[in-house]
Amino acid sequence: MTHPEPGEAMEARVRASLERQGMMATLGVELIAIERGRVQMALRHNDRLTQQHGFLHAGAVASVLDSACGYAAYSVMPPEASVLTVTFTINLLAPAAGQLFSITGSVVRAGRTLQVCRGEAFADDASRPFAAMQATMTALYDRPDISG
Amino acid sequence: MTHPEPGEAMEARVRASLERQGMMATLGVELIAIERGRVQMALRHNDRLTQQHGFLHAGAVASVLDSACGYAAYSVMPPEASVLTVTFTINLLAPAAGQLFSITGSVVRAGRTLQVCRGEAFADDASRPFAAMQATMTALYDRPDISG
Amino acid sequence: MTHPEPGEAMEARVRASLERQGMMATLGVELIAIERGRVQMALRHNDRLTQQHGFLHAGAVASVLDSACGYAAYSVMPPEASVLTVTFTINLLAPAAGQLFSITGSVVRAGRTLQVCRGEAFADDASRPFAAMQATMTALYDRPDISG
Amino acid sequence: MTHPEPGEAMEARVRASLERQGMMATLGVELIAIERGRVQMALRHNDRLTQQHGFLHAGAVASVLDSACGYAAYSVMPPEASVLTVTFTINLLAPAAGQLFSITGSVVRAGRTLQVCRGEAFADDASRPFAAMQATMTALYDRPDISG
Repeated sequence: MTHPEPGEAMEARVRASLERQGMMATLGVELIAIERGRVQMALRHNDRLTQQHGFLHAGAVASVLDSACGYAAYSVMPPEASVLTVTFTINLLAPAAGQLFSITGSVVRAGRTLQVCRGEAFADDASRPFAAMQATMTALYDRPDISG
Repeated sequence: MTHPEPGEAMEARVRASLERQGMMATLGVELIAIERGRVQMALRHNDRLTQQHGFLHAGAVASVLDSACGYAAYSVMPPEASVLTVTFTINLLAPAAGQLFSITGSVVRAGRTLQVCRGEAFADDASRPFAAMQATMTALYDRPDISG
Repeated sequence: MTHPEPGEAMEARVRASLERQGMMATLGVELIAIERGRVQMALRHNDRLTQQHGFLHAGAVASVLDSACGYAAYSVMPPEASVLTVTFTINLLAPAAGQLFSITGSVVRAGRTLQVCRGEAFADDASRPFAAMQATMTALYDRPDISG
Repeated sequence: MTHPEPGEAMEARVRASLERQGMMATLGVELIAIERGRVQMALRHNDRLTQQHGFLHAGAVASVLDSACGYAAYSVMPPEASVLTVTFTINLLAPAAGQLFSITGSVVRAGRTLQVCRGEAFADDASRPFAAMQATMTALYDRPDISG
């Protein structure tokens, strides 16, 4: 059985919402790949995003991991739902040192109201992540004031 | 008994480190108050920092809470130590709607190596927080490549 | 305006649910106080609940904090709702050394579906907690298979 | 290059510490497998470990996940170190319904002082976890009062 919403419609829905995030433009985030339940983004090192030692700020990493997890959750929601972050935990396994960061979010479990996701951030060609996230997202329905 | 480091020296140490955070300048964060074990910051709503519904992005809120908690921890460390985030958990209790946000970080327990902090974010004149953080920071010693 | 459910009914509802928790009996947990949005429990040191150094196991502490937070959330729910834990984060600020532990859970923000709580655990006469929890609970409705 | 400590010595060290955990005996936990950086445990459903709906209590699940993660971390530490939990986050993805639960802990990143681990809990023959943990452990050195 195929999913009721075609993949192209889902991808367009995710891209339209992401383009409304001022924060992703400020960070210079690029959307690399979307599939149902998984989103990959890229972030470049930028001195405007650093902490005091010159590494990427934990908050910049967390912002992109949160968006990757949020859109992974959004990609499996019905088209009429909106997505909000409930809570997330991030572990910084190593300093965010590098030039190009690959950041993924994947749905671990999806319910109608709550979705649990995992995110990982990789620096340059590393095979092991330097940051890991566990996130809980929620789908909102029947909220005409909030869409996307 | 007074703390071996005068309050002015501690405050100068925190400010010098904070000024090296490109991310805080990018977010437009202002340092409001520092005391030993507690830091207060302010953030203004800005369309460059939003998620898709026009509220502040969870990552922007997390970034400032992380810095407030990190500098609260740093304020109680010996002057020769550097601070890094180990992990944090943020709960978004309500959408980050408002114009002016007050963000505080406080040390709950400080050891030589690990410091546990709590952060809270308030919108405008609200008495109840819209976001809460529990964070673990670490002090680094004898790392000439990392200072502040 | 008074709450539609009398305090006695709420307290009876919490106690009835708690008494069905086999785990609380196994740990020897005692319910000390209930008010709307706040629950206090007591736990005694017991060699059956230790980790390898003879302190209380982090999981034993987490179990009681989770129940205290869960029942704080349950106390503010409508009588027809059931409560489940979505996620929690616990920080162990110091080893759980002592004889009598006081464990509290409080609601920080309550929505119809999600409730965010904070928990703290104190040893003997300590004024500072040795463990802190941030928890997200959910209310279930219309689930005849799950009650309490 | 082989690890300086033989696998048998590491396994004996983990088992000796685990056997001192009163909590694991109280829960009836069985150690299934140990390798360097990964521990698997088993837990049976027991009415003494339930929450109010008859599922395993979140705290019982968290206790075993915490021990699995803790011993995964301990297995990669030098023999003279002791292990303590700093913090963990658990997501309950579904009620802990079943008869036999398989619980694993794996090291994601190991430093001399801090180790980050992930844990997963599976019910019966399920291929997807019903609970996921992200945990931070610490190695203690030169603490004659704390061993294992």
